[in-house]
Amino acid sequence: MSPSPRPGSRRSLVEGLRGVVGAANVLTDDDVRRLRTRGKSTPDLLRQRSGDLGDAPDVVVRPGGHDDVVAVLAFAQEHRIAVVPFGGGTAVTGGLVADPAGLAGVLSLDLGRMRGLLALDPVSSTATLEPGLRGPEAEALLAEHGLMLGHFPQSFEYASIGGFAATRSSGQSSAGYGRFDAMVVALRVATPVGEVRLGASPANASGPDLRELFLGSEGAFGVITEVTVRVRPLPEVKEYEGWRWASFAAGADAMRALAQSDLLPTVLRLSDENETAINLADPDAIGGEGSAGCLMIVGYEGTSAAVAAKMAAVTAVLDGLGGTPLGSAPGEKWAAGRFDAPYLRDSLLDVAVLVETLETVTFWSNRENLYTRVKTALETALPGAMVLCHVSHVYATGCSLYFTVAAPGGDDPLAAWLPAKAAACEAIVAAGASITHHHAVGTDHKPYLTAEIGEVGATVLRAVKQAVDPAGILNPGVLVP
Amino acid sequence: MSPSPRPGSRRSLVEGLRGVVGAANVLTDDDVRRLRTRGKSTPDLLRQRSGDLGDAPDVVVRPGGHDDVVAVLAFAQEHRIAVVPFGGGTAVTGGLVADPAGLAGVLSLDLGRMRGLLALDPVSSTATLEPGLRGPEAEALLAEHGLMLGHFPQSFEYASIGGFAATRSSGQSSAGYGRFDAMVVALRVATPVGEVRLGASPANASGPDLRELFLGSEGAFGVITEVTVRVRPLPEVKEYEGWRWASFAAGADAMRALAQSDLLPTVLRLSDENETAINLADPDAIGGEGSAGCLMIVGYEGTSAAVAAKMAAVTAVLDGLGGTPLGSAPGEKWAAGRFDAPYLRDSLLDVAVLVETLETVTFWSNRENLYTRVKTALETALPGAMVLCHVSHVYATGCSLYFTVAAPGGDDPLAAWLPAKAAACEAIVAAGASITHHHAVGTDHKPYLTAEIGEVGATVLRAVKQAVDPAGILNPGVLVP
Repeated sequence: MSPSPRPGSRRSLVEGLRGVVGAANVLTDDDVRRLRTRGKSTPDLLRQRSGDLGDAPDVVVRPGGHDDVVAVLAFAQEHRIAVVPFGGGTAVTGGLVADPAGLAGVLSLDLGRMRGLLALDPVSSTATLEPGLRGPEAEALLAEHGLMLGHFPQSFEYASIGGFAATRSSGQSSAGYGRFDAMVVALRVATPVGEVRLGASPANASGPDLRELFLGSEGAFGVITEVTVRVRPLPEVKEYEGWRWASFAAGADAMRALAQSDLLPTVLRLSDENETAINLADPDAIGGEGSAGCLMIVGYEGTSAAVAAKMAAVTAVLDGLGGTPLGSAPGEKWAAGRFDAPYLRDSLLDVAVLVETLETVTFWSNRENLYTRVKTALETALPGAMVLCHVSHVYATGCSLYFTVAAPGGDDPLAAWLPAKAAACEAIVAAGASITHHHAVGTDHKPYLTAEIGEVGATVLRAVKQAVDPAGILNPGVLVP
Repeated sequence: MSPSPRPGSRRSLVEGLRGVVGAANVLTDDDVRRLRTRGKSTPDLLRQRSGDLGDAPDVVVRPGGHDDVVAVLAFAQEHRIAVVPFGGGTAVTGGLVADPAGLAGVLSLDLGRMRGLLALDPVSSTATLEPGLRGPEAEALLAEHGLMLGHFPQSFEYASIGGFAATRSSGQSSAGYGRFDAMVVALRVATPVGEVRLGASPANASGPDLRELFLGSEGAFGVITEVTVRVRPLPEVKEYEGWRWASFAAGADAMRALAQSDLLPTVLRLSDENETAINLADPDAIGGEGSAGCLMIVGYEGTSAAVAAKMAAVTAVLDGLGGTPLGSAPGEKWAAGRFDAPYLRDSLLDVAVLVETLETVTFWSNRENLYTRVKTALETALPGAMVLCHVSHVYATGCSLYFTVAAPGGDDPLAAWLPAKAAACEAIVAAGASITHHHAVGTDHKPYLTAEIGEVGATVLRAVKQAVDPAGILNPGVLVP
């Protein structure tokens, strides 16, 4: 099945784009366009499997650098073409599904040629990366200098530096290395009204921090063409351990104690009872039959001395709070499979098992309320579903909750999932939590954003959008209420 | 001398405001207005001493809470009155000097009645504070619960919670407790187009972080009426030590090593050779005659165990890098006088010695260049001046530089200072650093802001301003280029 070009994707526009970036970098082949259709959420996969390619871009353009991006934006603005930045294609909230209403067509701006390490400042420990670099590529470039970024989301293998910034990604080592937005020191962004470079210094009082307006802007405010990040020395030592807790609440309290003592290891995650039972091949390993409890993974990375000191301090806290140390076996098992879940999901879809994830974040005092509301909403909407959860990131003031749902797919798994997702979103809003912790707003979460940031917040987003994208060509329909 | 009311401050407007917040909370007395004229920069003090009260507000209004602020903003918008939020009056960059052109007058919105601890969430370790609380008042309210905020700028005794947020303040314990903006979890802001509550969770991916747009907005985007901050247990132990370094560069390298190892103590500051020599009553105390070097203050606060562990780790690094430990005497001396400098400045002005400060921030690799440029600019513009500097805050990627200038005042100290300040600002811009690290933009730094955030950044600020303050009544002339 071929994605059908829209009426607007006329040959003259394609010719014009070839003049801008060269013929080799303007692609209209069906296969190329199909691979840049939507992202990797379960609904995206289901639509793809059903042959629905209605959201395919009309043309794929591959800029070679910032100046190319500027030129493409100028062309797109003049000819009113929607521009959808494309990095790794791992979006899971509809961020690649632009609304082309009123525009001449949709251009997928594939940043895959922009994969350079543009600058390295070892004294300041910063590196400037191009947005098309995938996670492993960025780490490989830095490793040549003995450095690393340390951002390891589940999408690590495919997702891109630009996407991490545009969606406020958060990885599995975020307890130690921080969310991606916290790693970002500076940004260069191409907008239809000009370029903007933000981040003249690590932090300052020069008015509002405008970096924070472009981080999480999902292509709606501009195309991020350079990302300067804090880098670190490659760790000498990596140690991952398991700890058993009697309950999800007891484990979460221990996480809270660590975070509020500013005593976080590099990796810290906690599975609830269901996720613990499902994910462990051998439940006996965490405490014997009928007593599976909850598995916490605690990872330490750094110099030998730093790891030893942190491990001693963290162990003292966890011991004191009643945790049971399980040694390195569960930790190594987690580390070995840390990027595998999406592959498992694909295999389960093959056998008609619907699997999807969603995440949220709240303050510690609201954790249990949020957990119960979302779990109940999912279980009610999807009878027979198995709902698993883990805490994927902790802060001094709160934590994220990452839910995985598995349910019989039935004849129409998409029709089954969409109301369940809506029910979960409504539960999140009702609990006063954030609609997403690290997967962005896209189109899927847009209906819930105004509840979180208020009418004035939505007004501000619209005002910024109008100021930097007066023609409304940047990822239209995404993010901005 | 009385500040003269502007023609616009007609009796009917004052009567109208009395109807809004009560007669007792609408003040037009000369003394009240004089005390809310400008801030506490040396130019502010010099103008005040010269009897120049041209910037006095026409009326001082004291709202009792968020709803009062909303009502005052509605009245001010209807009658086109400039609104200047007033907390502690410690602004040093002209943030209290609004431009009333085209408006009916200037209203100083004194937040001094809004001094409550509105909510405390000990589980999440957050507290919601009203903006008019001064530093010591906020700490006293929290201390009743065994908690603290830990924000100790030099202006601590007078400056307010709202001001800390609106200017992105940074305090002397920022190495351990963070900049004020990093302490802020949530904000409630009253704008002429409605209220906005931001901070549904500790951090999230729900689009741009709009908290960061109101932090540092200096009253130009709204009036901050509630600030929710992270709080901490009161420390069991406080230890302040001195360390001697052979040079400013050697000490800065040691700070960098600590920051890049994520091994920061609670207090970390380093004086350059001049500041070390001047500030020490007994230079012998830091290494003997002719060898004063540079004094670093290293402070540790927390539980006994945490302080002991941190001190051991930090000491090992500093020892390894060639620092000379000076024990607790220099540390205690610094702690005893930490809020004294502004008083000394006042006394020096009495004897015709001009004293002023300014600060900037850059990446580590640019530290020496920035230091040399600013120092040279000040010494060139003010022959005979003594220029002192210290690093007041460190980040993994860079540090702030805080300069103090003392020079003969001459007949017209203001005329001597203003070109020197301009030369320093131009040196900062030329060095590619930030025009301010923690004293905000105000009116003094506004001419330099566009160089830092670019034309697109300035466009974004103007768009946000227009969206939330269409009548242009909020602190007009401040911040927004």
